[in-house]
Formats: sequence, structure tokens, C-alpha cells
Amino acid sequence: MIARESLRWNGWGRLGESTQMTRSREAALLAELGRRLGRPLARGAEPVELDAIRLPPPKLAPDVLARLRAACGEDGVRTSAFERVTHAVGRSLPDLFRLRRGEIEAVPEAVVVPAEEGAVAAVLRIAAEANLAVVPFGGGSSVVGGVEPRTAAGQAGALSLDTTRLDRLLRLDPESRTATFQAGIDGPSLEAALAQRGYTLGHFPQSFEHSTLGGWIATRSVGQQSDGYGGIDELLVCARVVTPAGVIRTLDVPRAASGPELNQLLLGSEGVLGVIVEATVRIRPSAARPDERGMLFRCFAGGVAAVREVARAELPVAMMRLSDAAETELSLLLRHDPARRFDPTATALSLAERLGYGAGRCALLYGAESSDARKVSTTMRRARNLLARNGGLPLGRSPGRSWRRERFRTPYLRDWLLDHGVAVDTMETALPWARLEAGHDAVVCALRSAAATHAGSGLAMAHLSHSYLDGACLYFTVLYPVEAGREIEQWRAIKRDTSEAILAAGGTISHHHGIGVDHQPWMAREKGVLGVEALRAVKRAFDPSGVMNPGKLL
Amino acid sequence: MIARESLRWNGWGRLGESTQMTRSREAALLAELGRRLGRPLARGAEPVELDAIRLPPPKLAPDVLARLRAACGEDGVRTSAFERVTHAVGRSLPDLFRLRRGEIEAVPEAVVVPAEEGAVAAVLRIAAEANLAVVPFGGGSSVVGGVEPRTAAGQAGALSLDTTRLDRLLRLDPESRTATFQAGIDGPSLEAALAQRGYTLGHFPQSFEHSTLGGWIATRSVGQQSDGYGGIDELLVCARVVTPAGVIRTLDVPRAASGPELNQLLLGSEGVLGVIVEATVRIRPSAARPDERGMLFRCFAGGVAAVREVARAELPVAMMRLSDAAETELSLLLRHDPARRFDPTATALSLAERLGYGAGRCALLYGAESSDARKVSTTMRRARNLLARNGGLPLGRSPGRSWRRERFRTPYLRDWLLDHGVAVDTMETALPWARLEAGHDAVVCALRSAAATHAGSGLAMAHLSHSYLDGACLYFTVLYPVEAGREIEQWRAIKRDTSEAILAAGGTISHHHGIGVDHQPWMAREKGVLGVEALRAVKRAFDPSGVMNPGKLL
Repeated sequence: MIARESLRWNGWGRLGESTQMTRSREAALLAELGRRLGRPLARGAEPVELDAIRLPPPKLAPDVLARLRAACGEDGVRTSAFERVTHAVGRSLPDLFRLRRGEIEAVPEAVVVPAEEGAVAAVLRIAAEANLAVVPFGGGSSVVGGVEPRTAAGQAGALSLDTTRLDRLLRLDPESRTATFQAGIDGPSLEAALAQRGYTLGHFPQSFEHSTLGGWIATRSVGQQSDGYGGIDELLVCARVVTPAGVIRTLDVPRAASGPELNQLLLGSEGVLGVIVEATVRIRPSAARPDERGMLFRCFAGGVAAVREVARAELPVAMMRLSDAAETELSLLLRHDPARRFDPTATALSLAERLGYGAGRCALLYGAESSDARKVSTTMRRARNLLARNGGLPLGRSPGRSWRRERFRTPYLRDWLLDHGVAVDTMETALPWARLEAGHDAVVCALRSAAATHAGSGLAMAHLSHSYLDGACLYFTVLYPVEAGREIEQWRAIKRDTSEAILAAGGTISHHHGIGVDHQPWMAREKGVLGVEALRAVKRAFDPSGVMNPGKLL
Repeated sequence: MIARESLRWNGWGRLGESTQMTRSREAALLAELGRRLGRPLARGAEPVELDAIRLPPPKLAPDVLARLRAACGEDGVRTSAFERVTHAVGRSLPDLFRLRRGEIEAVPEAVVVPAEEGAVAAVLRIAAEANLAVVPFGGGSSVVGGVEPRTAAGQAGALSLDTTRLDRLLRLDPESRTATFQAGIDGPSLEAALAQRGYTLGHFPQSFEHSTLGGWIATRSVGQQSDGYGGIDELLVCARVVTPAGVIRTLDVPRAASGPELNQLLLGSEGVLGVIVEATVRIRPSAARPDERGMLFRCFAGGVAAVREVARAELPVAMMRLSDAAETELSLLLRHDPARRFDPTATALSLAERLGYGAGRCALLYGAESSDARKVSTTMRRARNLLARNGGLPLGRSPGRSWRRERFRTPYLRDWLLDHGVAVDTMETALPWARLEAGHDAVVCALRSAAATHAGSGLAMAHLSHSYLDGACLYFTVLYPVEAGREIEQWRAIKRDTSEAILAAGGTISHHHGIGVDHQPWMAREKGVLGVEALRAVKRAFDPSGVMNPGKLL
């Protein structure tokens, strides 16, 4: 179960964890970033303490509380400031601004933590009768406002329904290689339960350590190795969802043609239809030895073409992540340690420069994993050959090793940069190969222009990840100086300009972050008015009185 | 465009095509089947002629006809007996009974054949105003009653909307490897258009020669090589659908997490939401040389375990089709030619018998195809080794060659057997590996029992096809003697008993045939009442007055 008291209430990840940079590296990085952003960077005002946040007193009537306690147990209904604040927001950039300023727009009246399906159903019933919204909350790592306790017009408040006590492995079917979990189980617990039995799900989103199976399903999540294992939509076999209208369950079969696939209504449903309480997923034998390596390309277009060749060859790689020139340069900057006398990376890079991999170069990280070591080595050899034939310069395993070491650490950097007045935001889309480079250029341009307009300066960059036969995901990062007191307005303006650029390029508003409240304004543009209306009709069927997660998605 | 006048109006496929058996083979086969079914088989009463079928006169008011003609052109509105009869049924066993007896339950008032999207929209508008149902009709090969011109209570009649003039390739994007077609294009035309440019879709359902892209999407079709290329659900990128409420279009991106995937509401929608007019699909370079081979297993369980190993190894095979002992024996019987002096198959089999591959043996056909010949040979070698290590006896390429020669011919046999008083019906499901063998046994048993009860005798058999990580499709065939005059009742009783057995085994009512009217009684059992209600809600959003294909699916 996620031990929320061991997590930072107003930032990413576990208490006591940090970027693990030395003082000298920190100083050098701040100096360099300050130079690029056109202003000196220094530690800003301290974030407020939890105690300092003024919360409205819970509005729940005693009989409602009593009924919730009867359903979830004494410990299953929580109204402390810690619980209400930690369940009030997710982990988007504006969420961090709100937490650090102690200005939270809405907090749940209470956090309910049901330990079984019946209790979930009871909570939905009580909420409907008491005119309360219910907001499903798993790991709380949403970066699109998916867990904000919003209420619909006329509702008296919101309950945050924390799923993390629903965390058991219910069945493992070694013949069919499927496992059935309660959906509130978090990533590490799920993988530990499978590893004990020799299996893995292979789903490692950036939020892996603090997100849940149910959350992955509700947001159509992908993991860092999803090129190999498939996104959560490909891993899901069937699910049980408690909706206000009753339980919906899909069938445990590998495929069906019995009308539209109901799993696909649950995938991406973001809690607006009901609470995912159980899911059966495809598992594979534990990967014996992952292999991840680096490669350099002379330019982004060349790297994209090479990655596309591997995708077209349908090689079973687990990941390909190609940084553009700006991201490649920034990640070298992040790794640079001025105290280190001999830097083998620097030596290798200056060598590479002489081969034409200098300014504009782009780094690719590619990897394979499987229980079959021979399959890994064959795949990696064939991928390397194909990539090298397409202009790649192999960098060996060292970039892969540092990536694996730090794969879940990057978000810690965001808090540290915020401490120093620098905001980091990320956006993502997917595009067909034919429009990928134009889309990359347009969105990076839009980010730079938005940062300059709304923040005075900024750095924008991107990487390609998650390749498909017909296209790939582009993941954008922007760094810009925060204007104290105008954090949310600044963020919103940059978000708006970038989202418009993504849609103008023909991309989706989200490849894997989801919609929540932040992307909701673009839903009708993407899905069409009629498409949104169809999803609303489904919602009315499952949730006639609008209890579930109002204001999100639709 | 499908030239319907070149097709048999009351049977499968093209005029002039046949089973291509010699007289002596026919006689031997009939004698042997008669022996097994416990009665001599002889040519029965001739099916009625088209002219002999009494059709109700079309009920369309002149102004409605005039408006339809204004929308679709003179040639686009057809009321001849040939057009009305050929658009009245699909190609299920009961459809063949109805056609042969000339007793068709419902015929469309007219067949409309729009040549562009605007005309489709106009037809839906005119139908709504004239209180008519619209039944989308592509190739008309539905085996579940998907194209019957049913009407809802109060509707004045039905129009069959033939999509086959919507048959153009609109765009081919070689970079993203996608192609956009009008959805009424038939299989051979689609593959020809792609082959000219060096590509293939790789979607070859049994009905390939007489089915359309739109029909594949509407029924969640799979093809014979879908283990490699993926089902139509994996090949579809985006679509345009004309619904009574307006056009819905999905986005041309490889993946999105912007809420539930709308493509998945269109896939399997069986014409109840609207008319699919356009679709973009993933294409691959033309396969250089397919390679298909045979293998024998000593028993079905052994074959299933071997196939499962290949599926688990995620080898890129294009097909694995494992017949059970009864199907293996019947297919040997079908191939047997008494006039042939030397039969190499017989020699090989008697050799195999000495190795323990005698009674109970099961034949596997497996194959790979790709534009990359080395990939094919590597895949086939690895598959052969894995299968052989799991008890398979390689039979070489000869079974593969005859399969490929006859891959689209099997349905012709059904008509010939019907001529001789033997009905052939097929049913299919998908099951997880852990329940696959029990499901196989239960459903084959149910088929045998149902045939004995309702037809006095029968032969039942199955094959496994379409493997997934967690399970596979089972495809059942039953042969039984037809009782003249009670054809439909007999069929319905056997269908009911078998469908119950499929659901009792935990299988889906359809892996790829769809729901139509024949499987509709089991929809709520499979999807749950709430699941069906959700799909009905979607239908109401797209088709508020119930114009589209009433009585199907939901």
C-alpha cells in the first residue's frame, strides 16, 4: 500500500529523496541555467508549511460520516488536514504552485478508504444520497488535474475515494499468464507480488513508484518499456468497475467481436464512470537482463528516420527514446560535474564531434528486455545495426546504465528547480511519422514563443518516445523563470498556446497523460462535439446523477 | 467494386466456381459422410429460382424514391427483385436455407447505392423523415444476420444502403505507412490498389473476396494472417462515420490517451451507429514470400501446449491453426481421392502412425510472411524448433501449399453439401489458455449432443486459430443431416444449445463473426445489462430516432 505519510506532501516522491547532486554540480547548473534564462537563479521564498494552510471545515453531516464509517471502518474515513490536502491535488506544475503557496482551490470533505468492493459501492450510494461528488484517487500522481475534488453545480462537496487499500493480488493464472489484482495496488507492490512468482507486468510509467493499476487503466497509461510490453490498453484483459448504476465487469477472454469492446470504455475513463476495483492483466516471465544503450545522431531528422526503421522492422525493442538537440544538450549539462577531473563522456563526445556529431547532435536511448537472454541480444544487435546503418554512432551501455539508475529520479529535479524559481512543465502528443518533424518544430517553437511572451525567457526541448508502425509520441519539456504571484496565470498561458499548437499540428492533446481538467478545453476539438456527446451518454448510463469525478474529461 | 451479378444469389461466392472435386471424389465423400451420419446422402430438391420468389411490392412513396434518386442518382436507387433479394440476407446457414426455399422474412424496400459521403448523409436524412430503417450492406457476407432489413416498431420499411460504390483509395502516406480508403472497397480491390504501390494490409478473412473494409471494421474482423498483421482493430488508425446526428471522425494519430478511444466504439458497431464511409489503416510492404507448413501432434492437448509456447515466445508468425482430431480426420477425408494410385500424404501418414501420430492426431498449419525474407525464414525455423520440441512432427510445405490454394474455397463446399442434405454450420469463441481445452471439449460435446437431439446425428469438430498471449480462438464446425421443412428450427435449436455451452465455458459469444441478430440473445449475458445499456446510450447519441440497422447487436 502506498504509505502516503512517507511521501512529500507538496512535491514529488519520497521524503528524504533528492536530486543527489553535489553542491558544486548544483551551483554550476544554476549558473548555467541562469545564464540561459537571462537572470540569476537563487533560492526563493520557502513553500508554506502544511499547518499554515487554512482549510474550510469539513461540511459533512454527522449521519453521513457515520454511514461512511459503517461502510469503510473507522480508519477508512479520514478528515485530517494532511489527508485532505494530500488528496486535494495531483502532481502537475500548477498543483505544485498551489501546494507551495498553500492556496488550494478545493479540498475534499473527507477521504474515504474502502477496503473492499462492497464498501466502494456503499460510498457511491451514500454520496448520491448526500449529494456529494466522489473523486477516485489512486497514487495521486495525475499531471492534468485528474484528482481535484471538484463538484458539479448543486453538489454539497466532494469525497476523495482513496483506492490504495484495494491492493491484493487475487489470482495468478500461470497457464494463461494473467494476474488479477485489486486495482488500488501500486506499481512497486504489484511488481513485487509478480516477481515473487517469476513474472512481470512490464509497466513502468514515470510515476511507477506512486501510481496504481487502476490509475494506469483510467488514464490509458504507457510505461517506459511499452514499446515492448504494450501500453496498459494492450495489457488489460478484463476489469470490474463499481459505478453508481451497479457493477460492470468485462469478460476474461483474449479477444471478442461481440460489439464494441467495453474494456475500451473503461480505459481512459478517468474516474467519471465509476471506480475500477479489479483488473486482470497479461503478465510475462521476469526479464532476465535488460539491455539499454545509447547512440548519437547528427540531427533530429536523422534520428527520427532511424527510429522509424526499427519500428517498421517490428523489432521487439522495449524502448527507443530520441532526444532532440536541445534536450540532448541539456541532459549533458545536467550530467556535467565540474569537480570531476576526468569525464569519459566528455572525451567520447569530443571524439564524436570530429565525426560530425557536434552541434545539433541528438541522443537516442534504446533497449530490450525479456526472460530470453538470446532474444535480448539478437534484438539489440539487429537494432544497433539498423540504427547505425541509418547514421547512428553507438555510445555503448554507459548511457543506458545511468538512465536505468535515474529513471524515476527526474521528477525530483522539478521541485529543486522550483525552489530556485524555475518552472518545468511537460506536454506530450502523438503524430504520424509524416507529420512528426513538422509537429516537433511547431510545438517547440510555440513553447519558446509562449515562454518568451509569458515568462520573459525559456528553454524548450523534446524527445520522441513510444514508437508505433505509423508514428510516435513526442514529449516536450519547457523551463522558464517563475514570476512570483503570477505562477498559475503564467502556466495557463503557456499551456494554452502550446495546446493550440499541438492541435494545429494535428496531434492528440495527450498521448498518455490524460485529460483531467487541464486538457478538457480541447476535448471537443479532438473528439468532435458528437464524440464527446457519445461519451457523455455513456456517463449518464453509468452515473445518472453525476456523482463520479465531475468536471473531468467530458 | 463488387460485381454482385457475378455472384451466386443463393449461395457462396462466384458463379461458375465450385468445390472442384472430381465425380469419383464426390461420390466417395458422400458415401463416407452418409455412413458417418447414419443415412445415405443424395441430391435433394433443387433450390427455388429467383423468379419464383414472391416479393411484397416496394412500399416507397414516389416522393421518397425521387428524393433518394436525387441523392444517389438514377442508378443508385434499385428496386429489382435481384437487388432486393441479394440485399435481404447475408450468408449464414439459415440465410442459405431461406434463399434455397425462397422464403425470405424481410426484403428491403429499395437498395440505395450512394457514391459519396454527402449522399449517405442524405439517405439517412430522407430515411429518418420517411420513417424508414437503413441497413448498411457491404459485401453481404455476414454469417450472423447482420444485414437483414429489419425494422423497428412503427417503421414503414427498410432501405439497404449498399456501400460498394464508395470504393476509392483516397490517400497513401508512404512515410507513416497508412492508406485511406472509402470504406465500401472490397478485399481484392483494396489489396490490388495497395499491391500496385508495393504494400499490403494483410487482412484476409475467409470472406475476403466478398467483404469490405467497412464491414471488417463494423464486425471487428480478423483475417487468416492476423496473428502477424493484427486484427482490424489493430490495423485501424481512424475513420469517418456518417450517423443520423452528423459525421463523426477520429484523429489520424498512432495512439492517444484523450479519454476512451472512439475508434473502439466504431469497431464492432455493426451499422447500428451509422455508416462507416472512410477509414485509414496501417499498411506494410508487400509480403515477398509467405511460408506455410504443416505439423502433426499426437493429441489436441499437446498441440495446444506447443502453439501456446510459440504465442508466449511472441514469435512473429502470421498464423497457427491447429485442428482437433475430428477436424484433422475430416480434412484428410476431404482430400482423399480414391482415383489416385499413389497418395504421398497417405504414405507420410502411415509412416507417422508408426511414430505414434495415429488415432487422435491433430494437424497444425503454421506460417509467416513479411517483405523481409530472412525474417520469414528465421521465424519459421524458430517456430518449427519450438513446436517440434513440444511434440510436433514436421510435415513440410505440402499442407501449406494446399491450404493457400484452397484458402477461400472451403465455403463452396457448404453449398454442395446442402445440395445433398447436409448442413454445415460454424461457431467461434475465444478463451484463456487455462480454460481452452475444457472449453473445446464442452462445446464439441454440446454440438454433438445438439446435433443428435435435433438432427438425429452429426459430426462436430474444431480448430484453434488466432493465438494471443493469454489465450486463443476456437472455431467449431458441425455437420448434420437437414430435415426438409424444419431447416430453420433445427438450426436454431443447435445454435441455442451451442451458444449456451460457449457461455457456460466462459467464452465470448463471438471472437470474430460478430453479433447481428443471431447472437443478440446472448449479448446481455456477455456484456452485462449495464454494458448493453451503455452501448444503447451511445446509439441514442448518434441515432436518436433509431434509423440505423434496428434489431442488430443491442
